[in-house]
Amino acid sequence: MSENSQTVTVIGAGTIGIAWSALFAVNQHSVRLFDVRKGFESDTIAPLRRMIGQLTDEVDVALGRISFHGSLEVALEGATVVQENGPENPGFKQNIFAEVEAIADKDALLISSTSGIPPANIGEKMQNPARVLIGHPLNPPHLMPLVEVCGTESVDEALIDRVNAFYQSNARVPVRLHKPVAGFVVNRLQMAMLREAIHLVGEGVVDIDGIDKVVLNSVGVRLASIGPMLACHFGGGAGGIREMVEKIVGSLFAAMDLPPVDSRTLDLLEAQAAKHYPLDRLGEFAAVRDRRQAAALDVQHKNPLPQMA
Amino acid sequence: MSENSQTVTVIGAGTIGIAWSALFAVNQHSVRLFDVRKGFESDTIAPLRRMIGQLTDEVDVALGRISFHGSLEVALEGATVVQENGPENPGFKQNIFAEVEAIADKDALLISSTSGIPPANIGEKMQNPARVLIGHPLNPPHLMPLVEVCGTESVDEALIDRVNAFYQSNARVPVRLHKPVAGFVVNRLQMAMLREAIHLVGEGVVDIDGIDKVVLNSVGVRLASIGPMLACHFGGGAGGIREMVEKIVGSLFAAMDLPPVDSRTLDLLEAQAAKHYPLDRLGEFAAVRDRRQAAALDVQHKNPLPQMA
Repeated sequence: MSENSQTVTVIGAGTIGIAWSALFAVNQHSVRLFDVRKGFESDTIAPLRRMIGQLTDEVDVALGRISFHGSLEVALEGATVVQENGPENPGFKQNIFAEVEAIADKDALLISSTSGIPPANIGEKMQNPARVLIGHPLNPPHLMPLVEVCGTESVDEALIDRVNAFYQSNARVPVRLHKPVAGFVVNRLQMAMLREAIHLVGEGVVDIDGIDKVVLNSVGVRLASIGPMLACHFGGGAGGIREMVEKIVGSLFAAMDLPPVDSRTLDLLEAQAAKHYPLDRLGEFAAVRDRRQAAALDVQHKNPLPQMA
Repeated sequence: MSENSQTVTVIGAGTIGIAWSALFAVNQHSVRLFDVRKGFESDTIAPLRRMIGQLTDEVDVALGRISFHGSLEVALEGATVVQENGPENPGFKQNIFAEVEAIADKDALLISSTSGIPPANIGEKMQNPARVLIGHPLNPPHLMPLVEVCGTESVDEALIDRVNAFYQSNARVPVRLHKPVAGFVVNRLQMAMLREAIHLVGEGVVDIDGIDKVVLNSVGVRLASIGPMLACHFGGGAGGIREMVEKIVGSLFAAMDLPPVDSRTLDLLEAQAAKHYPLDRLGEFAAVRDRRQAAALDVQHKNPLPQMA
């Protein structure tokens, strides 16, 4: 089976389901979009056209690869991939995955876009719960490259490989999580920062526009250029991430009442940094960082936000 | 007194002091760089030239605006602004600010780049501790626009206005903090995210390169385009930030054992969002966000990071 031009059943024509459909169709896949809402096709076409138009000029060609179905059985005909986007409700997902398992091809990839329900929970009513896979995007999935990928503890790694290949065929960047955690990685990182931001607003340190100004003019530009771990590794100079954590991060964590970094984790950080970001090659990373940061600031200047009060 | 072409004494020729000197000189100010290290001029010229070269082609012109001094008294001659970048050591800062106060013009702005020592602490040995101002950059200050600005509780707001005007004359974006907090805002936000990232690596959910990949392909791009508060406001759809916190953020905070958002803070968030990001104008913000995000992703693609293991 080729990873290109698959038949993909998209379950749920909400914002996420429509965005996935646009993305998959633009990337040569046949999309079978299912929703229980009567006549959903008529109000789905306009947002579909708009999202497809953000990806390609050939809107009609891509739109022609999408069909609309009110019957799950019909929607699943010939599907090699299923991407589910129903309500964030364990009961709903358990039922629909059991139904899909009973109808779909036994080799089809069964993927949920859930942002928080663990795969084992979703699979509770299935014959084989280990078939449940997570492909969690950041909204909107046709524009944001990230897809967080994981399965249950007993997932077959060959399935993960196929999921990764499928998302890569859609120009996405899949990141494998070794275990599911509530909110997965991206929302946990966002929530951790948001919690501190809300706390600072609540304490009267700064207003919400001040928070946004701070981030846009500093750490946001940095995080669009290098991730937080490489940034931390840079912060330690010649001593890398270990020095940064021991000399600076540790005291800031203490001042903020955050738990300290234990020595086992510090060893892990140092070993992984040595592998992915060797200290003797950090100059190459720094050069890319500087170019990216300058260009990201330029993007802001050329596209100003509306000015309010 | 014009806010342009001031005489600025920069104390400390470390990385931050050199970067400030480059920035101030390129922006037409006369810079008097002071350090106690004998002959520091000789090994300061090369990094100064490099940083100036990142801002302008006329390196020699800007370099000509910088003089080098081993005597604090001479360095402070004619200064209307002092930017201190000594070691992050309260004793050092207390002594040098007392010295500076005794020598400098009584109207000079006395600013510390400290990333964590409260202004009242820095001023402990001064006649008038309320003169201590904070101008905290994110490294490197000649490239990152943000400067966090604050003073002691009894600071004269006219001084804050002058500090803001000075940084604006250097093409920086000053953000006024209403009270000093440990780490100020930018480091607290970074540390909150970093703590969660380190925790996830320690738990084996994902490796450090996975964390960076997640951020670069999603939230980093978002935070270079809109800040975290506007992103949260968008997340709530027609209900804005209140709906987002009540429906989604609250349950994620609970799942992560983060404290809930109290109703007083929620009211504050809603009122500030209504003022800075009115719901009926969010479409204008969304259009800029989308353009910025697409361009920021393009910047990444055109400037790939080195690929390791």
